[in-house]
Amino acid sequence: MLKVLITTVPFGDKNRLPLELLEGAGIEYLINPIGRKLKEDELAEMVTDFDVLIAGTEPITDKVMSRASHLKLISRVGIGLDSVDLLAAERRGIKVSYTPDAPAPAVAELTIGLMLSLLRSVHVANAQLHRGEWHRHFGRRIPEVTIGVIGVGRIGQRVLRRLSSFGTPRVLVNDLHPDTNVVPQLKLEWTDKEEIYKQADVICLHVPLTAYTKNMIRSEHLNLMKSDAIIINTSRGGIINEQDLADALNAGHLAGAAIDVFEKEPYTGPLADIERCLLTSHMGSMSIDCRSNMEIQATKEAVRFLSGELLEGEVPKEEYDVQRMGL
Amino acid sequence: MLKVLITTVPFGDKNRLPLELLEGAGIEYLINPIGRKLKEDELAEMVTDFDVLIAGTEPITDKVMSRASHLKLISRVGIGLDSVDLLAAERRGIKVSYTPDAPAPAVAELTIGLMLSLLRSVHVANAQLHRGEWHRHFGRRIPEVTIGVIGVGRIGQRVLRRLSSFGTPRVLVNDLHPDTNVVPQLKLEWTDKEEIYKQADVICLHVPLTAYTKNMIRSEHLNLMKSDAIIINTSRGGIINEQDLADALNAGHLAGAAIDVFEKEPYTGPLADIERCLLTSHMGSMSIDCRSNMEIQATKEAVRFLSGELLEGEVPKEEYDVQRMGL
Repeated sequence: MLKVLITTVPFGDKNRLPLELLEGAGIEYLINPIGRKLKEDELAEMVTDFDVLIAGTEPITDKVMSRASHLKLISRVGIGLDSVDLLAAERRGIKVSYTPDAPAPAVAELTIGLMLSLLRSVHVANAQLHRGEWHRHFGRRIPEVTIGVIGVGRIGQRVLRRLSSFGTPRVLVNDLHPDTNVVPQLKLEWTDKEEIYKQADVICLHVPLTAYTKNMIRSEHLNLMKSDAIIINTSRGGIINEQDLADALNAGHLAGAAIDVFEKEPYTGPLADIERCLLTSHMGSMSIDCRSNMEIQATKEAVRFLSGELLEGEVPKEEYDVQRMGL
Repeated sequence: MLKVLITTVPFGDKNRLPLELLEGAGIEYLINPIGRKLKEDELAEMVTDFDVLIAGTEPITDKVMSRASHLKLISRVGIGLDSVDLLAAERRGIKVSYTPDAPAPAVAELTIGLMLSLLRSVHVANAQLHRGEWHRHFGRRIPEVTIGVIGVGRIGQRVLRRLSSFGTPRVLVNDLHPDTNVVPQLKLEWTDKEEIYKQADVICLHVPLTAYTKNMIRSEHLNLMKSDAIIINTSRGGIINEQDLADALNAGHLAGAAIDVFEKEPYTGPLADIERCLLTSHMGSMSIDCRSNMEIQATKEAVRFLSGELLEGEVPKEEYDVQRMGL
């Protein structure tokens, strides 16, 4: 019997449809019994006799695949591929699919929410009031600031479109493959990352984690930023060096930061001691509709594969090239 | 020499222009030396020999005015008039001006920020992460929910316009004087307050505090709301009964609340013990640009008055009628 291992949790929680799809197709499944993001060794031990992985962001390495002699498809719930060794999968003839569009609206909305909280010190005032202190914080509005967006793809574009109804900020943008026709509602100034670090009041990251973006923002880059800049990372942990960010904030640099993604999740680290650092628990895609769409799409892909139908969400060749060329 | 008492604090903090305007016109001024919102008795004691009050939200009652034999103008920094006894001012021949448009953009932006935080449990995840706990919260996006706006004036309209770039939520609206032509970007459904309480997932209040709105939302209204509704008050304290809201939240009703304004400020009360209640310290208008505009406009009005020029921001007759008729 064909067997699917679902490693991402929660799964089928707000909408049972993905589980019903598997049951309807007569496919046996196991949901990650540990109930949190798996470590490499845990996954390697668990994966042995499954045909398909419906996967979260746990490390799907060559070592994991070497223990998974039945594995023929990795169906990622989400967009990031940093957790999957695509080249190892290719060598072993394991197909990889993903759901690149499904999480984007939820990540974009969360990003705007974090931006507005940081600009108005909502998180700081809330913490103070909950311990009985009252400070009225000055803030800034969107049209008052220069916004810098690094990565103007599915998510970056959606962030910019949502900003367009708030008045007209100055917007600096950077992307490896600039598309100057996007978001016509705003006048975008394409520039390099260094100019964004220097000039932006708000810096948002919407890039994948690759060899090129890993550790992209370190002390030397943070030091280029305005002393009252804010930085938001809802993309992937490891793009901003966490220790360097904590050091900068502890030294009084930057007005604040919002971090949703971490090098190691669940996160425990020095940012948790910094009040003006707004922390969320990798919740970018966690709106009920987007999460359901991701789970349904990834499950349908698994069912298609196990029924011998054509795949619809296969990861394109360019993503393999990114890993091949260390981009 | 003409003397101005500035009771609202901070004042001239981010932008000295208002103070320079007074100095340039040779007007003596005193900034509230207590440094927080004044109580009635404190103001009554302080106000005795001033000609003009540049006022915050402290109570400017008949008793206060009775001690202010020189007082000829109250120039409110902001929009709310609940703190000013307009009828007593009228009887005593004291003019009242305000700056009704200046705070609106900042209040609208904060409201959207609070809404996005509540919808995604950002404030709860942040508190948890800062004490070392990791929970991934499910949330909802704007286009997934029904939004109810009570009060579709300067601020309510601006909230709706900003929401329009987030996709299309269902929007229920209520106003004493419905203007069905506003915010054409969204399809608004005009209805009564009770329907909003019953049907909305997100309830925003953008009404003035009057005899009609005081204590408008009590237990019986909170109980009509969906068990996972959220409610946001960035208008005035006293419109939602604070104890009733705390009781409802403590009983597990409502997904959350965001409260920026309180019956008594600085706030200390039971809402501070409820984690899913997001609290800010009357910061709606506290963006640097809006706050500066408010201070500059209120100060220019004082200078105009003391120079014998025509006033530009006098409170219209309708506002007096609201107090006269207890609306």
